[in-house]
Amino acid sequence: MKRRLFTPGPTPLPEEVRLSQAREIIHHRTGEFKRILEEVEERLKYVFRTDNEVLLFTSSGTGAMEAAVANLFSPGDEVLVVRGGKFGERWAEIAQAFGMKAVPLDIGWGRALDPAKVGNKIQKRPKIKAVLTQLVETSTGTLYDIEALGKILSETGAVLVVDAISGLCAQPLCTDGWGVDVVIASSQKALVTPPGLAFITISEKAWKLVENSTSPKYYWDFKKARNDLAKLQTPYTPAISLVVALRDSLRLIEKEGLEKVAKRHSRLAQATRKAVLAINLEILGDSPSNVLTSVVLPSKINGEKLRELMQARFGVQVAGGQGSLSGKIIRIAHLGWMDASDIIVVISALEMSLLELGYPVQLGRGLKAAQEILGGRRLS
Amino acid sequence: MKRRLFTPGPTPLPEEVRLSQAREIIHHRTGEFKRILEEVEERLKYVFRTDNEVLLFTSSGTGAMEAAVANLFSPGDEVLVVRGGKFGERWAEIAQAFGMKAVPLDIGWGRALDPAKVGNKIQKRPKIKAVLTQLVETSTGTLYDIEALGKILSETGAVLVVDAISGLCAQPLCTDGWGVDVVIASSQKALVTPPGLAFITISEKAWKLVENSTSPKYYWDFKKARNDLAKLQTPYTPAISLVVALRDSLRLIEKEGLEKVAKRHSRLAQATRKAVLAINLEILGDSPSNVLTSVVLPSKINGEKLRELMQARFGVQVAGGQGSLSGKIIRIAHLGWMDASDIIVVISALEMSLLELGYPVQLGRGLKAAQEILGGRRLS
Repeated sequence: MKRRLFTPGPTPLPEEVRLSQAREIIHHRTGEFKRILEEVEERLKYVFRTDNEVLLFTSSGTGAMEAAVANLFSPGDEVLVVRGGKFGERWAEIAQAFGMKAVPLDIGWGRALDPAKVGNKIQKRPKIKAVLTQLVETSTGTLYDIEALGKILSETGAVLVVDAISGLCAQPLCTDGWGVDVVIASSQKALVTPPGLAFITISEKAWKLVENSTSPKYYWDFKKARNDLAKLQTPYTPAISLVVALRDSLRLIEKEGLEKVAKRHSRLAQATRKAVLAINLEILGDSPSNVLTSVVLPSKINGEKLRELMQARFGVQVAGGQGSLSGKIIRIAHLGWMDASDIIVVISALEMSLLELGYPVQLGRGLKAAQEILGGRRLS
Repeated sequence: MKRRLFTPGPTPLPEEVRLSQAREIIHHRTGEFKRILEEVEERLKYVFRTDNEVLLFTSSGTGAMEAAVANLFSPGDEVLVVRGGKFGERWAEIAQAFGMKAVPLDIGWGRALDPAKVGNKIQKRPKIKAVLTQLVETSTGTLYDIEALGKILSETGAVLVVDAISGLCAQPLCTDGWGVDVVIASSQKALVTPPGLAFITISEKAWKLVENSTSPKYYWDFKKARNDLAKLQTPYTPAISLVVALRDSLRLIEKEGLEKVAKRHSRLAQATRKAVLAINLEILGDSPSNVLTSVVLPSKINGEKLRELMQARFGVQVAGGQGSLSGKIIRIAHLGWMDASDIIVVISALEMSLLELGYPVQLGRGLKAAQEILGGRRLS
């Protein structure tokens, strides 16, 4: 059976990106690799919309989250953590592991972030050095208003650290324009590259924190990474085959155009949501993103059973709920190398599987709703 | 021009391993990936010669070195570091970055390690919790006697931590049999996989240190990694395409047989050394390894110029000297996916390039010496 991934990382890969990895391996201390790194760096700046360097680490996205904490802060520092899902919780866990005081702002899983609340908290606790949050909280698919948050925080001493691991390219994000100090991403989401690379960009305001940080670091050392990047090197042997694949992914993204990539994601997300509503199912939360759609299941339908059935019948893999949402939702990612027909496939599989599980679905209703959004316009 | 890598990582890749990466990406939380991880784990135990788990991290080898330091020790702990090259120095740097007291045992670049000296040091300073060293010091190609060191340390409270990043599979190494507590390796050396994965195995004696360590850690957390591995998972999204490639590399190694792989490396190393001596050049140090041959150049020959010429004329890439050896040596790696004809290629390129640089070489002399070692027996 064909494998069809609708998971929020890894995401399906364009053929040329897959094949890139199969090329002969090249050495990382050569002019040839330096030219690749130079191109990757330039194109990463384009997708991050920043003039600052984008540092590259061989790790998963969580590695870059740890890198941010270890480089920006010192034990005892206070940081505000927006907790609206598993990845907000991860920020708090990492900060605590490194001896910081993680002040939580609990907003409920799936709830939109009210940037003014962050502003108030910062005013009340001026010792807070940074706000750690997400562009999209992947455990629920919730989009946070980073533009508004950037505006508020740029008038304070606090730096804004955004995990855009699932959001980058799927959502508009103007790192410099919005005053976002630190942005983190990884390769296996909308950057349509296999997992194994993580990226991080740091504003001048944030570099001042780096100068004063006393936390232990070696592999994640930002200063060393920046010095080496100036020489088109990485401090340690990078995942060379993934860097080469990334170069080709970034070319594809630039060819389509960053704005068009985000618009495509927006349209696919909209089609998915309309389809889900047409099947009489609910969508989780009040701020759904372009990354994925969290479908709230009727109490009689077990999410894990539904997922298994979609996979067994149609090879369609969607993600389940995490934490307290386990079994109660499924998460349909429309992320990365996706087009209109992919949405048709996943909605069809959802309709047929729900019917098989005894939920009254009028076959084709969700599909029609999706088609009405997807039709008539070029998608990519 | 064909590219011919004789560098100690990355090393040339078998075609099937390169192509493995190009397969469709699969999700890491699936039965399919669990089966791959299960096979990888079993085969890693075979190459590490251990019954303990081999933890897998998405990072370069240095990441796993940091992981060992952060998980085994606490700030203020004393560790003995064997410093005989760049990677011994790296152990000291990492330990210091994490607040440990790194007691150096400086043995000189290229010099063999005298295990008795380590034993004496430990006796004099019983507070020392561990000895951090290499199987092969890659910056010089020097082999250390880990078997003897293991014997000495197993009668003390100190644990033996060995960076076998370049040495694993190229040299015999009996992790459990020799009483080595912690062994580190990475994917891009004799494991003939692209860079991006690092491995670490931990003895019961070392796990006791892990229990007491107070150093901050999150991404590198051994306990979390072990718990997840028991469920055939990794804590964070691993470099999936590299894990799949590794599975295929490990199959090749097991098919050839671990002992035969080491013997092949030994014969290629011997042929290279004989050839270098036949060209009237010296070999660095008193304990050359199977990993690479460090060729000491006559003072009139600049190593960087020689390397450039070998690459420009023959596409042959060898490594240069590091630190104070920069320009004074070249390092010819005979590591990984290598056979007799590869040695012929690199020796021929060396002879012709030296002649072009004005060094009196009798063409073919080194080649003949290599042939005498390489001939008559099956190599792989």
